[in-house]
Amino acid sequence: MSDLNAVLETAGREFDRSRERLFNLVRIPSISTNQAHAGDCERAAQSIVAELQGLGFEASVRPTSGRPMVVAHYTPKEAGSRTPHFLFYGHYDVQPADPLNLWKTPPFEPVLKKGADGVDRMYGRGIVDDKGQLMTFFEAARAWIAATGSLPVKATFLIEGEEESGSPSLIPFLKANKAELSCDAAFVCDTNMWDAKTPAITTRLRGLINEEVTITGPRIDLHSGMYGGAAMNPIRVLGKLIAALHNKGGKVMIPGFYDGVADLPKQTKKQWQALKFSEKKFLGDVGLSQPAGEKGKSVLELIWARPTAEVNGIWGGYTEPGVKTVLPSKAHAKFTFRLVGKQNPMKIRKAFQKFAKAHIPQDCKIEFSGEGSGSPATEISEDNPLIARTARALKDEFGRDAVLIGSGGSIPICRYFKDILGMDSILVGFGLDDDAIHSPNEKYNLSSFQHGIRSWVRIMGAVAE
Amino acid sequence: MSDLNAVLETAGREFDRSRERLFNLVRIPSISTNQAHAGDCERAAQSIVAELQGLGFEASVRPTSGRPMVVAHYTPKEAGSRTPHFLFYGHYDVQPADPLNLWKTPPFEPVLKKGADGVDRMYGRGIVDDKGQLMTFFEAARAWIAATGSLPVKATFLIEGEEESGSPSLIPFLKANKAELSCDAAFVCDTNMWDAKTPAITTRLRGLINEEVTITGPRIDLHSGMYGGAAMNPIRVLGKLIAALHNKGGKVMIPGFYDGVADLPKQTKKQWQALKFSEKKFLGDVGLSQPAGEKGKSVLELIWARPTAEVNGIWGGYTEPGVKTVLPSKAHAKFTFRLVGKQNPMKIRKAFQKFAKAHIPQDCKIEFSGEGSGSPATEISEDNPLIARTARALKDEFGRDAVLIGSGGSIPICRYFKDILGMDSILVGFGLDDDAIHSPNEKYNLSSFQHGIRSWVRIMGAVAE
Repeated sequence: MSDLNAVLETAGREFDRSRERLFNLVRIPSISTNQAHAGDCERAAQSIVAELQGLGFEASVRPTSGRPMVVAHYTPKEAGSRTPHFLFYGHYDVQPADPLNLWKTPPFEPVLKKGADGVDRMYGRGIVDDKGQLMTFFEAARAWIAATGSLPVKATFLIEGEEESGSPSLIPFLKANKAELSCDAAFVCDTNMWDAKTPAITTRLRGLINEEVTITGPRIDLHSGMYGGAAMNPIRVLGKLIAALHNKGGKVMIPGFYDGVADLPKQTKKQWQALKFSEKKFLGDVGLSQPAGEKGKSVLELIWARPTAEVNGIWGGYTEPGVKTVLPSKAHAKFTFRLVGKQNPMKIRKAFQKFAKAHIPQDCKIEFSGEGSGSPATEISEDNPLIARTARALKDEFGRDAVLIGSGGSIPICRYFKDILGMDSILVGFGLDDDAIHSPNEKYNLSSFQHGIRSWVRIMGAVAE
Repeated sequence: MSDLNAVLETAGREFDRSRERLFNLVRIPSISTNQAHAGDCERAAQSIVAELQGLGFEASVRPTSGRPMVVAHYTPKEAGSRTPHFLFYGHYDVQPADPLNLWKTPPFEPVLKKGADGVDRMYGRGIVDDKGQLMTFFEAARAWIAATGSLPVKATFLIEGEEESGSPSLIPFLKANKAELSCDAAFVCDTNMWDAKTPAITTRLRGLINEEVTITGPRIDLHSGMYGGAAMNPIRVLGKLIAALHNKGGKVMIPGFYDGVADLPKQTKKQWQALKFSEKKFLGDVGLSQPAGEKGKSVLELIWARPTAEVNGIWGGYTEPGVKTVLPSKAHAKFTFRLVGKQNPMKIRKAFQKFAKAHIPQDCKIEFSGEGSGSPATEISEDNPLIARTARALKDEFGRDAVLIGSGGSIPICRYFKDILGMDSILVGFGLDDDAIHSPNEKYNLSSFQHGIRSWVRIMGAVAE
């Protein structure tokens, strides 16, 4: 305990320099989607390696067919066979900064500003996503090493450079370096707190499967005068299919869709109710007022614990300005299904295909062109002892209970760590909903950064025991 | 009667030169949609004026804000106040010729070829639509004047130059020249025969009204992970609207939609049944096998005498390759309604708007952006004595009854002639379904051209009585 206090004190003394180091990293425009910034990505990776080597890590830039990875290992001097080994994951690449004209300060010239509300905020592209967040690992490690001469755990840092462009090199890299990267568990710092005062651990992530359909009616586009009333219009068929997907209560009508979907445990339901989440504000912020999903479920349950069937895009016929009296030959739609519990992605795709075929009249045909094989939902058991220890460390830091939340989206890295490296992921991050990630004027509260560093100091200590 | 025989004989002697004159007109690439061909349109108009002046017409090129009109008048020497006066309408402009690589001979170098089936066919852009057809008027007039010294009727020729680009100048031109252009009736030569041996008069044209809808759900595009299951998706709402438009029997479900739609008279039904129209071939040619409209109606009734509600285009969300997990803010669709009988276009649009609004949930809004005020259906009474005389003339020419057919499309000129000039239109044309109008290798059978000239010789005689 005195160790921990000493480490926290060191982190506090170092904090201004921590911020300077973060600013230095943000100054490198390491945009992964743009080939013109490949050199900047390389430079960002090199600077991280130099920094981690300075802390005593065995660190290196690892080339891929795209942007390089950084891998760094630290073994405590007194480590034994029972010393736990954790992987810490973040990404150094950032989103493009456009539209540039909406930034109040240049995106790659980070600044610290005190708001009219007295809150200190740092601005810049990547200041939170994910440079600010990954630096909380580095600065926590620096404090431990400075104060005690060592980290309390074996650590492997994996810092990716392609997260913002779909991580094309990640799966092959994990497979090729399986022995080197497999640890007891992974900590991922790329998520949000519940609010500025309440820490959160994300334990539920929905899975995802996609499907694309093309419905063909007549073999060529027809004149709606010549053929209208006689020829089948594939847009009408597609409309019927989309309309049949949900009943009036918002339930998905594909037979077997809910196989493997469990009711929310009463305890979790209670916990989420206690969050006092404002459905009105959540929906109101985007111009809506009523939850659109299954009736009788809370919004949090709908987005964290219920599956969906959605149309993400639709097109067919004439879509330019003006009128064209065409009966199109083809109509298209892109569907995705968010999955929870034990829903099997490929089974869901097949069930949808069967359902869709049953809605196609004799004179039309339907083709499917979904990509990949999808990902099932990830749920980390709340009984996992690492969750309990992490939660305790967060409570010590924030003075209030960490909440165990879900995320409606998919964070594929968790799936890959589980499937390829056989380890669970603990998702703890210090972002806030208003951080404007991927948008102009991305920001990170100074207090978020500080809580982040101090939280990892505590978590590293808590999981070392 | 001896007059008529003499005129037909003259037309026969002249026929090779008639074809040469048609070829000369086809050689002018008078494409109205392309500004680069404005000079060619002017040239085509000038050449028509010269030709009609040569026949004794008072003819002139009449400028518009787009391509010029040709107006020509002929008054018989012995005309009295009871001599009937008819307007003859055609258009000298043609569709663009692309894709050029699919033409077997250059589109503006007309040729005559004998097919393996022994049929003589002329090829070239505009050879039928509408240069070949309008020349049947000219050559019939030439024969009458050469053989008898005069036309048997007062004639006004109105030859348009913007039919293939939406006739933007037509309404103002008709309004500005109402007195000059108003006649007892109009003959329009821009339609087809029933088949190569059976002449047809088109007496029913469907009307048209359009509407475009934009449905807005959330005020911005949302991430389908963050919001999926909680936020309303406007594509789903649009799907429900489209699905609700028709019942299982193919009937349009908009309240009041069928107001003013009469059942087909038994006699007309019988006539159409006698046509032995092959529904199987009509649908089979475009890859279909079953009529998609109201159950229990024949295909001819569906396309000639029943109204429709169709979606001509639909778009929303992500429509590029790959997956994007977006819940779009907006979804769009273009609708058109083909009208028959006494259906009122603006009432139909309003009824649709009301119907659509009733399908929009509280959290979405719908906007309408239809263009124009539509056109009601045109039906020329089959009791009109001009129809009877025209039919008799066609029977004399072809040796079989002319059939009174419908057209599923709209020919706006008929509406304008009725509304602005107060006259009915008699539609008689000599095209065939396989003439490939608007497509590469457009053709006109030599026999169609010859029957066309001879038919107008006879019709001019028949309506003069």
